[in-house]
Amino acid sequence: MKRAALIEEIQKKRSFLCVGLDPDMNKLPKHLLNMEDPILEFNKAIIDATHEYCVAYKPNMAFYEAHGLKGWQSLDKTITYLRQQYPDHFTIADAKRGDIGNTSAMYAKAFLEGMQFDSITVAPYMGSDSVKPFLSIPDKWVILLALTSNEGAFDFQFLKSGEKQLFETVLETSKAWGNDENMMYVVGATKAESLAEIRKIIPSHFLLVPGVGAQGGSLQDVCKHGFTKDCGLLINASRSILYASGGTDFAEKAKEEARKMQREMQTELLNSKLIHLLN
Amino acid sequence: MKRAALIEEIQKKRSFLCVGLDPDMNKLPKHLLNMEDPILEFNKAIIDATHEYCVAYKPNMAFYEAHGLKGWQSLDKTITYLRQQYPDHFTIADAKRGDIGNTSAMYAKAFLEGMQFDSITVAPYMGSDSVKPFLSIPDKWVILLALTSNEGAFDFQFLKSGEKQLFETVLETSKAWGNDENMMYVVGATKAESLAEIRKIIPSHFLLVPGVGAQGGSLQDVCKHGFTKDCGLLINASRSILYASGGTDFAEKAKEEARKMQREMQTELLNSKLIHLLN
Repeated sequence: MKRAALIEEIQKKRSFLCVGLDPDMNKLPKHLLNMEDPILEFNKAIIDATHEYCVAYKPNMAFYEAHGLKGWQSLDKTITYLRQQYPDHFTIADAKRGDIGNTSAMYAKAFLEGMQFDSITVAPYMGSDSVKPFLSIPDKWVILLALTSNEGAFDFQFLKSGEKQLFETVLETSKAWGNDENMMYVVGATKAESLAEIRKIIPSHFLLVPGVGAQGGSLQDVCKHGFTKDCGLLINASRSILYASGGTDFAEKAKEEARKMQREMQTELLNSKLIHLLN
Repeated sequence: MKRAALIEEIQKKRSFLCVGLDPDMNKLPKHLLNMEDPILEFNKAIIDATHEYCVAYKPNMAFYEAHGLKGWQSLDKTITYLRQQYPDHFTIADAKRGDIGNTSAMYAKAFLEGMQFDSITVAPYMGSDSVKPFLSIPDKWVILLALTSNEGAFDFQFLKSGEKQLFETVLETSKAWGNDENMMYVVGATKAESLAEIRKIIPSHFLLVPGVGAQGGSLQDVCKHGFTKDCGLLINASRSILYASGGTDFAEKAKEEARKMQREMQTELLNSKLIHLLN
């Protein structure tokens, strides 16, 4: 998907919500568990319920790999369903891959060509040749980990080398590997105070932002410091939407939660004059 | 597998060779391509041919994921074959995973419990909570990326923060998360000059060393600076063994290549008095 198409969706939906499809068997509504493929049924219901209010879906591979072959089948069917039913939604393989060049090329083939995801999350530790193979496929995106939302982010990502912290060096160095039409960055909402600094380094790249809500990040703070002139944010929500209810009304409650987030995002877009009420 | 059992295998085989099972469809012998599962047939032949000369096998996940569901079936059958035929060999899921805590726990379940690998390679960027879930399963190992063998290693891994380079901080910090009975580190043979420094930080942890041979690393240098008092090294070879011949004699040539490496390793073990000719 091209950047212009993604921005058009954001304008149309008045939303920059990404729904994380992380189906945890221990949290799925009980009535789904007897079905042949509970994960697929859950995902389809969540997608049907939320598609009007979001612009992207992000399955995290771990939740599928945990179930072996059966999990990969559920993932494959989920992404096929998305492509067929909602082809305008941006899709993210949350895989956090990264390996030596010829091996990263294999991962690129698996996720961006085989499963036809629009994008894949990639870990930066192994450097340029671990990332570049993902950038060689037209209209596909790398979403590189920069500043993650978890506690462990403090172990290495803030290490100072000269004037710069590691995540700043990752941004500085990696932005030369691609451009704002094929690279995004993961920046956790819990680190919103770093967003102003980050925007000095990458003023126009999209950011994928986990950690709003459950993990304590503030949507307002993220928008205040993170908006570009055409939005430039995808805010992810997983558990707050997926498990809004554990009963038979799970899809309805997921829809309510997604709508609520869309409303909040619309307010932010209007306040920052990124959309207009009558456009 | 426990450390003592791995060391016993090294003593018995007089080898610390790990064979990387990275089946690349473009390089497989032509006569295998018409079989129902060429990857499985290739792996089984390579395993049967090399098992006497190595102590570990390391399939890299990318080479299986590239083929979607069919690839995961080949991987599943390969690891089952290994467990049943050669249960004394140490197995490494070369997956380079790492995510927030609850997600890393899912990966741990997939690889260490579901597929019963002895170990998994993990990327350090996301810090402690991305690594610790893998350490909570008895007799299983994390193999953490420290200093990789590729060119991209120079982008971030050598960044200096105070007196220490990033990979040194990764070693210093992470060694407290586990111990030398459940953690190893990846250190590329192409960075052998750093091994003496690395051994000051982690004197007894096993190292998984790629990059000997094709990538230019020297076995002698790695052993000189990397041996612990009970060996403490696993040297990986993939392409040089797998594709020693592209013809019908591929398994025989792979065996010759593995035997050659075993002989060289035996010499190093003898020279360093880690084994004795008559023990």
